[in-house]
Amino acid sequence: MNYRMIIHVLGYVLLIIAVLMLLPLIAGLFFRENIFNFLITSLLTAVLGVIMLLIRPKKQDLYARDGFAIVGVGWILMSLLGALPFVLCGDIPNYIDAVFETVSGFTTTGASILNDIEGLSRSGLFWRSFTHWIGGMGMLVFIMAVMPMSGNHSMHIMRAEVPGPTVGKLVPKARKTAIILYLIYLGLTILETILLLLGGMSFYDALLHSFATAGTGGFSTRASSIGAFNSVYIDVVVSTFMLLFGVNFNIYFLILIGKFRTAFGSEELRTYLLIVGSAVLALTLSISRIYGGFFSALRYSYFNVATVISTTGFGNADFTKWPVFSQWLLVLLMFIGSCAGSTGGGLKVSRLIIIFKAAFADVAQMIFPRSVSVIRLDRTRVDVGTIRASYTFFALYITFLMLATLCVSVDGFDVTTNFTAAVSCLSNIGPGLSLVGPSGNFAIFSYFSKIVLSIAMLLGRLEIYPLLVLVMPTMWRRK
Amino acid sequence: MNYRMIIHVLGYVLLIIAVLMLLPLIAGLFFRENIFNFLITSLLTAVLGVIMLLIRPKKQDLYARDGFAIVGVGWILMSLLGALPFVLCGDIPNYIDAVFETVSGFTTTGASILNDIEGLSRSGLFWRSFTHWIGGMGMLVFIMAVMPMSGNHSMHIMRAEVPGPTVGKLVPKARKTAIILYLIYLGLTILETILLLLGGMSFYDALLHSFATAGTGGFSTRASSIGAFNSVYIDVVVSTFMLLFGVNFNIYFLILIGKFRTAFGSEELRTYLLIVGSAVLALTLSISRIYGGFFSALRYSYFNVATVISTTGFGNADFTKWPVFSQWLLVLLMFIGSCAGSTGGGLKVSRLIIIFKAAFADVAQMIFPRSVSVIRLDRTRVDVGTIRASYTFFALYITFLMLATLCVSVDGFDVTTNFTAAVSCLSNIGPGLSLVGPSGNFAIFSYFSKIVLSIAMLLGRLEIYPLLVLVMPTMWRRK
Repeated sequence: MNYRMIIHVLGYVLLIIAVLMLLPLIAGLFFRENIFNFLITSLLTAVLGVIMLLIRPKKQDLYARDGFAIVGVGWILMSLLGALPFVLCGDIPNYIDAVFETVSGFTTTGASILNDIEGLSRSGLFWRSFTHWIGGMGMLVFIMAVMPMSGNHSMHIMRAEVPGPTVGKLVPKARKTAIILYLIYLGLTILETILLLLGGMSFYDALLHSFATAGTGGFSTRASSIGAFNSVYIDVVVSTFMLLFGVNFNIYFLILIGKFRTAFGSEELRTYLLIVGSAVLALTLSISRIYGGFFSALRYSYFNVATVISTTGFGNADFTKWPVFSQWLLVLLMFIGSCAGSTGGGLKVSRLIIIFKAAFADVAQMIFPRSVSVIRLDRTRVDVGTIRASYTFFALYITFLMLATLCVSVDGFDVTTNFTAAVSCLSNIGPGLSLVGPSGNFAIFSYFSKIVLSIAMLLGRLEIYPLLVLVMPTMWRRK
Repeated sequence: MNYRMIIHVLGYVLLIIAVLMLLPLIAGLFFRENIFNFLITSLLTAVLGVIMLLIRPKKQDLYARDGFAIVGVGWILMSLLGALPFVLCGDIPNYIDAVFETVSGFTTTGASILNDIEGLSRSGLFWRSFTHWIGGMGMLVFIMAVMPMSGNHSMHIMRAEVPGPTVGKLVPKARKTAIILYLIYLGLTILETILLLLGGMSFYDALLHSFATAGTGGFSTRASSIGAFNSVYIDVVVSTFMLLFGVNFNIYFLILIGKFRTAFGSEELRTYLLIVGSAVLALTLSISRIYGGFFSALRYSYFNVATVISTTGFGNADFTKWPVFSQWLLVLLMFIGSCAGSTGGGLKVSRLIIIFKAAFADVAQMIFPRSVSVIRLDRTRVDVGTIRASYTFFALYITFLMLATLCVSVDGFDVTTNFTAAVSCLSNIGPGLSLVGPSGNFAIFSYFSKIVLSIAMLLGRLEIYPLLVLVMPTMWRRK
């Protein structure tokens, strides 16, 4: 382990968090609010960061385990420090509650323990939505984009933070890849903000909802979420952008450089769109009676399929009132999640494609034992290690889901609440079913359950490994 | 595909089913009931069987795909024909209901659509419990034990029917292995019958409950199951035998030939007992307040942990009234299931050991990419194919669980009912939670859901592949 380098990079993380906190501070100044909470936290974080930066690494090389450690510890630090402003200004007086809300923000889950969202300070709400934007594309990816890192192996950091079975560079240099990703991210966010302004939203609402859409987070400035605006136009814009942010950002890069054929030929993209299309159709038919017509039902279907599969979690309807078939359909989408290399969570479409192709090949091989099968994705051979890693992730995901549900069961709520709260946190959605549906929230849970669900959210966002290795004894053993 | 040989072996299956139906027929004569239902079905089945036996195979060799086809088609035929006596005597007038009950019997699930169990004919009840015994160790294993099969590859049939990640022969000859398995099975069944007689049960009740325990089925002669006898002794005997039948039968063979060390050193056995012990302890603590004391709670915990992990499904308490934590703990045990090579269902302990060891090794390899890890079970190296097959099974199991839940959701019951009904059928347990708890039953479902759940039971008992390959186009394509 390159401890000095790990601490050094974590110093950068804190310094940038300190700088990013100036944005809600400025918002607070604009709205003439007390901004000492952000000032104090920003200073504290900056001082900590500078002290850590003073530890100079002897060599800059990073290995896979260092990348995991940086990302795992970095995200925990971000969450613990990012929660302070909420506590200091009294928006969320309890620290565990504040950490839950901040983890939910950074991990782009959007599960909330707040009952009175409109009662929050404007700067607090700004920070809450902005955490989605920071967490969506990733803090470490951001650092790679803005900081010069000369070590050869900075890709290990990116691999640990960017979701999906494989992470490839768009361009030979990891730093340039990070810059391109953030530029696309910023561009789409600005585009959505403009479109929402055109729909009549205030600049503040448009920006904050765009932050939350971009990170596929789901925090809103209103208790009734997007439903509060009651506008077909806004529903359609937000739905569409949720779906867009659930797409692998490599696709946008390919489009930008004119490789349309490769972009639209992507198996993951096609499967994602196929799942969205089928789910919207099935859901529309299932709820058309409730909304008294095909087109009204289509609006709510499109929005809620988009919000769930992109793992955003905005709401415009209480789907716990829908037929059970529709509800379970949404739970299935919660498992699937978005595309790899997007800002969304879940198992990821490409990982499921790999698993099903491998399973299909295995069954075929049972029929003809001597047949040799090669798994391909986008005409490229998927190596055995990636297949195995996809299966392992799937098994660990289900295991953590079952255990998280068991822990949360201690609170005594119904099985559906516990199970879907765990799915929702692990897949970084936001709402679940029953008591944690779009009209409910996570305030009902005990502190124990809130801590368990916070861990689940981090496990989901970082795809398990960066946190899991932190508790493995071999990680800290000297070789 | 060796079609002629497949049909030939299936002829044996039908002939033996015809013979086995004479047992409930004799029971019917003893109780002076109308036994024409068994006479007619037995004759029909025998005639069909003889016709199929007349088709002589050109060669006796069987390959893996032939084994799957025999087992897959054989079990469907058994269920379709085994349902006839219930319809003909009016015990279960509707054929789909009767097929559900018969599939539930053969697959040793024990999920029932009957509301008035005591109202059934005595011969019908006998057949119902006897299907558990037939299905437990497997029809094809039985055929291998009693029929001379000269082909070299009869192990392929055994592999397709005996559950677990790997199936080994106890002795060099497959036929002898089958005989030994059935002798142990018979011996344990007789032992339990005697112990239940000593507890004051009638011979009829003792025998039928032993059939159901042996197959880890769970059909009882009473609507309130084992709870009807209200005896600590009977509870303890049945609990213990449920656990015993959930153990890999290889262990009993090793004990019989004096290899105690190998037997009790088995990792799967130790893990199984560890899970049972921990679950009983946790459950006892969780329900001690309800039962007003540790020992009373221990009785119900022991019984219900045993009934769920062995996938039997007998009941002595309505655990849907227990704290939600206890209920979810039981759901976790439903997933785990019993040991490989037992009569129980579920994912199987050894398969989960393999998956977790492999996952742990994968995580370790992420930390030190150049480390080479070997997965061992009982000091023997587990080959990559077995690891992959375990993962594939896990992924397919979860997939079918999610899809079965979606199908069943059409009926509009609550999520917990649908999800646990699907888990229960896929793991061959019997009861689930909510409306399908120990006091509920599966009569509430539509015919569509009953068919879906019947398929789920067959998928669970045959561990997916024999049925899955039947619908694969490559299976039927000529090479």
